[in-house]
Amino acid sequence: MRRNFLIAALCAAALASPAGATDSNRARGIAALGVITGGDGEEAVRRLNELAPDMGEWIAQFAYGDVVSRPGLDLRSRELATVAALTALGNARPQLVAHINGALNAGAAPGEVIEVILQMAVYAGFPASLNGLGAAREVFTARGIAPPAGADAP
Amino acid sequence: MRRNFLIAALCAAALASPAGATDSNRARGIAALGVITGGDGEEAVRRLNELAPDMGEWIAQFAYGDVVSRPGLDLRSRELATVAALTALGNARPQLVAHINGALNAGAAPGEVIEVILQMAVYAGFPASLNGLGAAREVFTARGIAPPAGADAP
Amino acid sequence: MRRNFLIAALCAAALASPAGATDSNRARGIAALGVITGGDGEEAVRRLNELAPDMGEWIAQFAYGDVVSRPGLDLRSRELATVAALTALGNARPQLVAHINGALNAGAAPGEVIEVILQMAVYAGFPASLNGLGAAREVFTARGIAPPAGADAP
Amino acid sequence: MRRNFLIAALCAAALASPAGATDSNRARGIAALGVITGGDGEEAVRRLNELAPDMGEWIAQFAYGDVVSRPGLDLRSRELATVAALTALGNARPQLVAHINGALNAGAAPGEVIEVILQMAVYAGFPASLNGLGAAREVFTARGIAPPAGADAP
Amino acid sequence: MRRNFLIAALCAAALASPAGATDSNRARGIAALGVITGGDGEEAVRRLNELAPDMGEWIAQFAYGDVVSRPGLDLRSRELATVAALTALGNARPQLVAHINGALNAGAAPGEVIEVILQMAVYAGFPASLNGLGAAREVFTARGIAPPAGADAP
Amino acid sequence: MRRNFLIAALCAAALASPAGATDSNRARGIAALGVITGGDGEEAVRRLNELAPDMGEWIAQFAYGDVVSRPGLDLRSRELATVAALTALGNARPQLVAHINGALNAGAAPGEVIEVILQMAVYAGFPASLNGLGAAREVFTARGIAPPAGADAP
Repeated sequence: MRRNFLIAALCAAALASPAGATDSNRARGIAALGVITGGDGEEAVRRLNELAPDMGEWIAQFAYGDVVSRPGLDLRSRELATVAALTALGNARPQLVAHINGALNAGAAPGEVIEVILQMAVYAGFPASLNGLGAAREVFTARGIAPPAGADAP
Repeated sequence: MRRNFLIAALCAAALASPAGATDSNRARGIAALGVITGGDGEEAVRRLNELAPDMGEWIAQFAYGDVVSRPGLDLRSRELATVAALTALGNARPQLVAHINGALNAGAAPGEVIEVILQMAVYAGFPASLNGLGAAREVFTARGIAPPAGADAP
Repeated sequence: MRRNFLIAALCAAALASPAGATDSNRARGIAALGVITGGDGEEAVRRLNELAPDMGEWIAQFAYGDVVSRPGLDLRSRELATVAALTALGNARPQLVAHINGALNAGAAPGEVIEVILQMAVYAGFPASLNGLGAAREVFTARGIAPPAGADAP
Repeated sequence: MRRNFLIAALCAAALASPAGATDSNRARGIAALGVITGGDGEEAVRRLNELAPDMGEWIAQFAYGDVVSRPGLDLRSRELATVAALTALGNARPQLVAHINGALNAGAAPGEVIEVILQMAVYAGFPASLNGLGAAREVFTARGIAPPAGADAP
Repeated sequence: MRRNFLIAALCAAALASPAGATDSNRARGIAALGVITGGDGEEAVRRLNELAPDMGEWIAQFAYGDVVSRPGLDLRSRELATVAALTALGNARPQLVAHINGALNAGAAPGEVIEVILQMAVYAGFPASLNGLGAAREVFTARGIAPPAGADAP
Repeated sequence: MRRNFLIAALCAAALASPAGATDSNRARGIAALGVITGGDGEEAVRRLNELAPDMGEWIAQFAYGDVVSRPGLDLRSRELATVAALTALGNARPQLVAHINGALNAGAAPGEVIEVILQMAVYAGFPASLNGLGAAREVFTARGIAPPAGADAP
């Protein structure tokens, strides 16, 4: 429910925004942040700004407002691409956990997240894939999702 | 046409293969290799085996037969995830070029490939994204695809 | 001369810009891009936008307007930090070449650039440092700068 | 006070050492190690030698004696370059923490360290920058430095 | 004793297996897994399969059955090469710990493992080497191996 | 012949050098550089010093004199470990080519080099392994070594 509502809000913001209009740019970013984090986008910005001045605003306006909420690709595909990249890089566990949650919040099935992480064994090696699976297991346990063993069963 | 035919072949192979049956495993891999490379899967294996003994067979049987052709995620999403990972890693240009072609061969729109590469500016930095765009431009030029400028136009 | 003029323009833009004002944000970014590239900032944006829609604007507004032109650290130190990072990552030669030029354009001495690259042998290994030196040699030759051998002489 | 004294000691060692004279080489390294760690250079060598034979001596003689204490670039700039590189690589948190301390010990302002780490969002992506900020926050808390929020205020 | 027995089992499996025979392929992998983990290969597969469907089987059949147990290079050299690679990459500590154990289980002397990790200071930088030494210290302590200080003494 | 002569020179230098004696330290490094490059160690130092002041001396004295020529591990194993690390990192092709030559010069069989590179498919992914094979092919062609296809034949 909540997710559908937020996706609708995101799309509305995207459709309403003339290119370059910074206010709707930020609004789009806040809406996207809300979908990905499954929470309050403004609160996420506040927490990030505490870490360093302007960091939260950059993430809202640039990362989510300019890039992630662009219309050319759906949010679920974007989050799966991010899970792939962070699994392959293998040096940013907190962000990988956040985007495994983000992929699920954007509508990906648990089994699809696992498939992307498994596939990284081919492109970045088994250690990267195994550590990505560990991050997924942490997320699935916190959300009460059943073990991935059956995720790709027919 | 060709792509649809090959995807059908791939699905047929996937449906027909009991788990662990190596022959259909290899057949699935050869079919997937054919879709991704847009050519003859057996010929791709031969070329890879020339590079080193068994490399082609590993790619056919394990990488494509065991992993990439699993039913839990569609081939287009898998190729976009691979483009994301190779753009982020930034150290495997020939394979990035191959999988930008693979994403297009698996049904991704040129604008979707560009979106994934652009998004990596957020997760792996602008240099990684700029070099990924250079690889995409090389592929698009070779295929006669119009410049990406209009790719995400409404 | 030119560099001093551009640095003055950059500082003026920085001082004049109330937080969040996008127009002066972009102006700051264009001025910084002009200093770093030693050329016309708007022309640099046009070339980058040809590569992919909006890429040039992101680099002008976010990378240079929001980040690189912040007042908390001088441009020369920022460029030396970028040379350090790209040498250590070792997977983005074109951008390393651009920022070795950028460091020189921002007022770093050739010998200081060499010192940063040499130091990366300690933190990222000799191969990364050797390849960084190769990039510096390419830049120095193009600019007619004498070999680095005397750069750190007393 | 202490820092100025150690920098003076370092410069004296640097000026006194004919190229290739190993004893003054080691003395220079020990002095530089003292400045960076804000402690006793010989003690740092002992701890590192406990980890593996000769490791401490290599760090004293080669890393600090041959490289970091070279006269062509000041120690503060060298430490900011190291913070940039380790933030971008993103796989060496203990050393990043040590060199954030080292940059402060060598005279960098807390706000300058934050600027370098923020800038890595552009060159290595937001996850690398966010994790670097986490390391800085750990250091700042341990040293009782006020939150970075005001570091770049006018 | 145990190790010699398992190496004998591994060699027997290797000699007995016609190319492409999947059953002996898996048997070879299970035997190699047993040597490297110093335990029961089938149990290792079960634990890995719990993490994600088929992961354990891929590691048994492909990673250990197809690759690691090939006759062209002895297992000790293979494990030292893996320790080198994981130390240099610096982003997979659990797997580095596992393969430091694996190298010892395959017959490498503790001092040889330390030499490989120390050497990575040259090729991947001191932070990578220092973190690798930390992993080795963890393994040596767990196995009751004397500190590496004397490992390379004459 | 030549290799055996140089290895003998290297061992003699190693045995003759009291710890910390810099002159024999450099002599050991020059001898090791000669073995690895299959040429004149002093000439290699001169070429590296042209790239940047002192770089050649650091490589002779520290990298080869202090590290690579330590007695705790034979030179062939060291070069195979370096080939593994550079293949896995995937961002230093010229140095990978140099150390594939170095491994052969230190006594590794062509098939052993190929085995190490193939194994990296497991630990760093297929793209890293494929690009490593490309570097090996370049070296083997230059040396007139027959294709690796038969390297691991029984």
